[in-house]
Amino acid sequence: MASELIAVDWGTTNFRAFRFEAGRVAERREAPRGIMQVPGGDFEGTFLEQLGDWLHAAPDAPVIFSGMIGSRQGWSEAPYVSCPADLSALAKLHRFETRSGRTVHIVAGLSAVGPTGVHDVVRGEETQVVGFADSAVVEPRLFCLPGTHAKWVTVSGETIQGFATAMTGEVFGVLSQHSILGRLMEGDQDDEDAFGRGLERSGEAGGLLHHLFGVRAEGLFGAVPVTGLRSYLSGILIGHEVRAMLNQAPEGPVTIVGAGAVSGLYARALAAAGKTAETVDGEAAAVRGLCTLAVRAGLIQGT
Amino acid sequence: MASELIAVDWGTTNFRAFRFEAGRVAERREAPRGIMQVPGGDFEGTFLEQLGDWLHAAPDAPVIFSGMIGSRQGWSEAPYVSCPADLSALAKLHRFETRSGRTVHIVAGLSAVGPTGVHDVVRGEETQVVGFADSAVVEPRLFCLPGTHAKWVTVSGETIQGFATAMTGEVFGVLSQHSILGRLMEGDQDDEDAFGRGLERSGEAGGLLHHLFGVRAEGLFGAVPVTGLRSYLSGILIGHEVRAMLNQAPEGPVTIVGAGAVSGLYARALAAAGKTAETVDGEAAAVRGLCTLAVRAGLIQGT
Repeated sequence: MASELIAVDWGTTNFRAFRFEAGRVAERREAPRGIMQVPGGDFEGTFLEQLGDWLHAAPDAPVIFSGMIGSRQGWSEAPYVSCPADLSALAKLHRFETRSGRTVHIVAGLSAVGPTGVHDVVRGEETQVVGFADSAVVEPRLFCLPGTHAKWVTVSGETIQGFATAMTGEVFGVLSQHSILGRLMEGDQDDEDAFGRGLERSGEAGGLLHHLFGVRAEGLFGAVPVTGLRSYLSGILIGHEVRAMLNQAPEGPVTIVGAGAVSGLYARALAAAGKTAETVDGEAAAVRGLCTLAVRAGLIQGT
Repeated sequence: MASELIAVDWGTTNFRAFRFEAGRVAERREAPRGIMQVPGGDFEGTFLEQLGDWLHAAPDAPVIFSGMIGSRQGWSEAPYVSCPADLSALAKLHRFETRSGRTVHIVAGLSAVGPTGVHDVVRGEETQVVGFADSAVVEPRLFCLPGTHAKWVTVSGETIQGFATAMTGEVFGVLSQHSILGRLMEGDQDDEDAFGRGLERSGEAGGLLHHLFGVRAEGLFGAVPVTGLRSYLSGILIGHEVRAMLNQAPEGPVTIVGAGAVSGLYARALAAAGKTAETVDGEAAAVRGLCTLAVRAGLIQGT
C-alpha cells in the first residue's frame, strides 16, 4: 500500500486538494473550481490543470474525492449509501478511470429515511464527520455542520446513524437577495445585538413565517436598525433551526464542524437553547475523514 | 351627502375601481396598474387615464382609495393607525388634493405590536375585513387573508383587535424561483395528493427549514413526483403557517377572505388542523369595506 495520497474535497463552490505524505498533509491547494464553476463541465481538464504536477510526481499515489463531484451533476456518480452506515460501508468507494488513465475513488453520498418515511441526502459533509467515528465511543454524538444546507449528523461508535438537513443558509440567501426583506437591509456587518434578538424571537409564538415578516416591520419602525436586519434575520433562522434540531438530540455537547463566524453564531444559538457546543475546523475535519476512508478502503497504510 | 362614490382598491400589483350609485356597485374596472406598475410613478396620470370619464361625469362624487397607494412608495402617505382600532379610528381617512383639484381620501394602514413588542403592519387587507366589523358581534372572530403576505386578523365588535402577517406566499415564490427547490419542479398544475402530504409533513418533527429540504430529497428519490413538488412545498408552508396561527385562535370557524384556488388550499389546511372555515370573496370584501368606511367617514349616506 502507498504512503502517499492525493485527496480532494470537491464541492459545489470550491475545490480543495491535499497531498499526503506518510499520513500527513504535505501540501494544500484551493481554487474556486467547484462543480458549478468548472468551465464547460470539463472536470478532467480542471483536475489536470490544478493537480497535474502532483499526479506526475506521484504516479502511484491513490486519488480520493469527496463532495458534489460524485453527484449526478459531477464527474462520475457515486450512488448513495443508506443510513445507518458504518465505516466499512462508507469505505466502499466508487471507482472509475479518467480518460488520461488515472484511477479515482469517490466517497459515496448518504441517504436517510426519517421516522415518517421522508428522505434526506448528504454529499460531502459525511466525510467531515466520518473521521470522528470511533468504535470506542458508544454514546451517540450530534454533529452540526452549518452551511447552505446545514447538516445535523448523529454518530455512535463507527456508525453514522442518521442525519437531517436544514435549508437555513440558502433560505437566508434567497430572502436577503430576492424578497422584500432585503430591501431595507443595509451593510453586511454582523450585529451581535440584532442576532441575539433574532434568536430570542425564534423561541416566541407565531411561527417562522410570521417571524420573517417581522424583519420588515421592525425595520420599518426602526426597532431594529437597518444595518442589523441581516443579523436579525440570521438569528431568527438559526434559532428556529437549532430549536427544532435539538428536540430529539442526544445528551452531551454538540460538535460544530465549520469555519469562522458562522460556527460562532451556531455556538451562540445552541447556548441560548441550553446546549453546550465544541467546535472543530471544517477543513481539518474533511482531511481527517478523507484520510480515515482512504485507510479503511486500503488505499494507504494506517498511521 | 353624496349617493355616488368612486372607490379604488389600489395595491402593489393591481388597480381595481368601483363606481357606486345609491350604495351599489354600478360599474367596475381593473387594470394591471398597481403602484409598482405605474409608469414613471405618475399616479395622477394613471388615475385620470383609468377613471377620467367617471370623474368627469360625477364631479362631486367622493373618491376613496385603499391599499399600497397610501404607502411611502405610493401617491400620498397615509400614516398607520395602531391596533386595537375601531371603525371610528379607521374612518379617519387621510385626505389630499390632486394636482387637477380632486379631493381623494385614503384609508390608513394598521400597525400592531405583538405581546413581546415586535411590530407588524398591514395596508389594504384591513379594508377587506372592516366591512365585517359589527357592534352586535362581541365574540372575537379570526379572518385569514391568504396572499404574498398572508394576514390573520382578529375582530370583535367594531374593533380590529390585532393581526399577524405570515410571509408564506412570498417565501413560496422565492423558493420556487430562486432556490434549489425549483430546479426539480415541473409543471404548474395543482397536485392535491402532494399538497396533502405537505400539510401532513408540516405537523411532524424537524421544523420548517428541515421540511423544506425534504422537497428536494423526496423529488430526488421520486417519492413525490416532480409535477407535485410545487404543491408539496405549498402544503408544507401553508401547513406551518396555519398551525402556528391557530395556536392562540378564538373559538369558532375562521373566515377566509380571498379568491379562487388559494382559499380552497387554506380551507383544507384549516380542516387538517381541526378548524372549520367559511370563505368570502376578496373583492366583495374590499367593496364592502370601502363602502363601510365611506359611510362612517360621512362621505356618502348609509343604505
